[in-house]
Amino acid sequence: MEEKADVLVVGGGPAGIVSALTAVKYYPGKKFLVIRSVENSVIPCGIPYMFSSLKNPDDNKLGYAALEKNGIATAVDEVVRIDRTKKIVETKNNKHYSYEKLILSSGSLPVIPRIPGIDKKSVYPVYKDLNYLKDMVGVVKKAKNVLIVGGGFIGVEFADEISKISGVNVYLVEILERILANSFDEEFSVVAEEKLKAKGVNILTSNKVIEFTGNEKVKQVKFADGKTLNVDCVILGIGTVPNTKLAVDAGLDLGKGKGIWVDEYMRTTDSDIFAIGDCAGKRDFYTHRDAPVMLASTACAEARIAGANLYQVKVIRENKGTIAVYSTYIDGLVMGSAGLTENCAKKAGFEIVAGTAEGMDKHPAVLNGAVNTKVKLIFAKNSGILLGGQVAGGMSFAEVVNLIGIAIQKRMSATELETLQVATHPYLTSAPTTYPIVLAAQNASSKMWKS
Amino acid sequence: MEEKADVLVVGGGPAGIVSALTAVKYYPGKKFLVIRSVENSVIPCGIPYMFSSLKNPDDNKLGYAALEKNGIATAVDEVVRIDRTKKIVETKNNKHYSYEKLILSSGSLPVIPRIPGIDKKSVYPVYKDLNYLKDMVGVVKKAKNVLIVGGGFIGVEFADEISKISGVNVYLVEILERILANSFDEEFSVVAEEKLKAKGVNILTSNKVIEFTGNEKVKQVKFADGKTLNVDCVILGIGTVPNTKLAVDAGLDLGKGKGIWVDEYMRTTDSDIFAIGDCAGKRDFYTHRDAPVMLASTACAEARIAGANLYQVKVIRENKGTIAVYSTYIDGLVMGSAGLTENCAKKAGFEIVAGTAEGMDKHPAVLNGAVNTKVKLIFAKNSGILLGGQVAGGMSFAEVVNLIGIAIQKRMSATELETLQVATHPYLTSAPTTYPIVLAAQNASSKMWKS
Repeated sequence: MEEKADVLVVGGGPAGIVSALTAVKYYPGKKFLVIRSVENSVIPCGIPYMFSSLKNPDDNKLGYAALEKNGIATAVDEVVRIDRTKKIVETKNNKHYSYEKLILSSGSLPVIPRIPGIDKKSVYPVYKDLNYLKDMVGVVKKAKNVLIVGGGFIGVEFADEISKISGVNVYLVEILERILANSFDEEFSVVAEEKLKAKGVNILTSNKVIEFTGNEKVKQVKFADGKTLNVDCVILGIGTVPNTKLAVDAGLDLGKGKGIWVDEYMRTTDSDIFAIGDCAGKRDFYTHRDAPVMLASTACAEARIAGANLYQVKVIRENKGTIAVYSTYIDGLVMGSAGLTENCAKKAGFEIVAGTAEGMDKHPAVLNGAVNTKVKLIFAKNSGILLGGQVAGGMSFAEVVNLIGIAIQKRMSATELETLQVATHPYLTSAPTTYPIVLAAQNASSKMWKS
Repeated sequence: MEEKADVLVVGGGPAGIVSALTAVKYYPGKKFLVIRSVENSVIPCGIPYMFSSLKNPDDNKLGYAALEKNGIATAVDEVVRIDRTKKIVETKNNKHYSYEKLILSSGSLPVIPRIPGIDKKSVYPVYKDLNYLKDMVGVVKKAKNVLIVGGGFIGVEFADEISKISGVNVYLVEILERILANSFDEEFSVVAEEKLKAKGVNILTSNKVIEFTGNEKVKQVKFADGKTLNVDCVILGIGTVPNTKLAVDAGLDLGKGKGIWVDEYMRTTDSDIFAIGDCAGKRDFYTHRDAPVMLASTACAEARIAGANLYQVKVIRENKGTIAVYSTYIDGLVMGSAGLTENCAKKAGFEIVAGTAEGMDKHPAVLNGAVNTKVKLIFAKNSGILLGGQVAGGMSFAEVVNLIGIAIQKRMSATELETLQVATHPYLTSAPTTYPIVLAAQNASSKMWKS
């Protein structure tokens, strides 16, 4: 006999948790169950901070207290099959659960490229499993040479954190000609590269690993440029792919990309099954083409939409499509990106105008702790609509990129942004005379106006 | 014979400067002159920081380098009369300047209530004059007991900064039953009061000064409750009134409030004369009633609108009306407010629903420097449109209140905010699962949904 759950969530990551917490508010009478595959998971974006900033890696454990508090049951198990006709799932532990509504939140799996020797010991893909990661952290802390493969956000944050461990040499290899190339234009990548280099990180761009050598354990890597490097361990930060096996086996459609196809309310082709987070397909905000955005924050926004709309559409999704909006942190420097970069916008066929601004983040600039900041906004040339923005600055700039994110979601124009009303404060922001979002918009606007 | 200036700006504060800097971009061929009344002015919002945070009070001097760099002439003088027929102004130094477009940016004057003895020495209204303020700072630094009259932003920031000077006892008197009552609801005022009290500031609410005594110099104050206090100096932070004498003498209309009437493009009843900043009237974003908002940031937004639209309307003002959006800082605590408080909204006749959220500003919460945060959002009950928000938290919350400000200006709904896409980062923001703007919106939304 199967056990009954009205709402069954497959996956106990941030999206799974948030979908259940949202749904319980909207449908308090229902019986909820969250099935998670590992006993102890982690806060995904906190993983890099398990090396140094968190004194104890256990502090990055993902908590389930909020689920318990809301009467949501959890089980450690793995769903292996969905019977859509009977509306029952089957698990590895040979249990059966019936559902009215099923939420797939099965996340993503790290990309492991077919490089000879990649399966050797001490080559670590990043799995969201506390015990696995604690082992990795332990090995890194005792290492002399650590190689990080991939110069995206994850690679950069790993490099920054590991460089704080005394006695460890950090190498970062990136196949493209610069780091953070997918989220930032060149002038911002340069800022990040300088910061990492100043911390002693060895950055190898336009290069890649062609072989991992050693016996059981990795000892050396060979690069495409012919050089070699002795290493004690390697971390792979190349990216992830949606974990869709369960959905595909159940006959659910994939979209144009690799994720599970979902409509505006996160419903798959079976309207009793929802998919959210990394396993679900995303459509770009501007073009509605497939957008491979894998962020906990995006996942949580989707989880809230699914949770509210499980039985009826209660919360209209007003922001159509996914914008990639994120921030990263390198030793006091905050970098953030929202929407399209200049490069991406041009590739997508937009005619653009960019506006920039630089200045200090406090006023007067002599106030203790003031740092230099940089903002770039990208607008569609004739309509003047904001397409994207990038920032570099102090700690508050993680919220400045959220300002840009809202402005994108509301399709704001350069004109609106240059007349924006903002709060400024000597200790906390740029001066009212030089608020960077406003100045960058004005800069773009005057270019459009002249042309 | 008069000297010729195409664009003449009266007043060298932030609004005056920004209007000229904006206009020179849009109308580069014109001849600009900014007439300022004091040789050395100050960054207005930096005034409280002249006591402690800025080692040298001179560091708060307002700079004119940007004007010079853009070929904008300045003169230290005072305009005493406008001849609108001849389009000429006359100054205290008996000079005459002709104009095509005149921008009045004459600011505001501190309110000096008619309390016996208020004209005694060492009772300081806050004038934006560097030398005057340096004298005040000098006196305060040598004082034993300092009384600040007025528990608004300015009073609170003065109290925080002066409490850092060793040996000085700080007293803050507020006529209302709590501090920051015009910008925050009670639960936020309480947070600020606790913070100030912990710093040793003596807060006297529901009380007021009825007499200042002493010979030439103030020595004692008498309060309404019958108590007295020996003081060495007093700072008045009661508020300011628009400085409109010049405009009124020239026959320009005032609005329903005390500021100079202006249309959406900051044009007075004489369309060749603009008024911006504290001297100009403001209309509330929601009701279009008079809104006595006096902020450098508001002033700068108006200055940009005036500057762009001097000869033709080039930059459409899309955000109709003024929202009060500001932030303040008390010893590590950031408090911000945008739009209407619950109290103000109710007084203005709105039926409202409030949503709240609390949580840490980093994730995991054990990360170094994480502080507790509090967000309250106020929505119109049936339309679900955002009316206002208040925040308390760490340094980045000055930009979080700007998020709320944008959301107000774009008339976003609870539904939109609860599905908002935001960037989150362990070091820099709340978790994606608990991002406070989203949770507060969700909280309000579920209340609306239930009712």
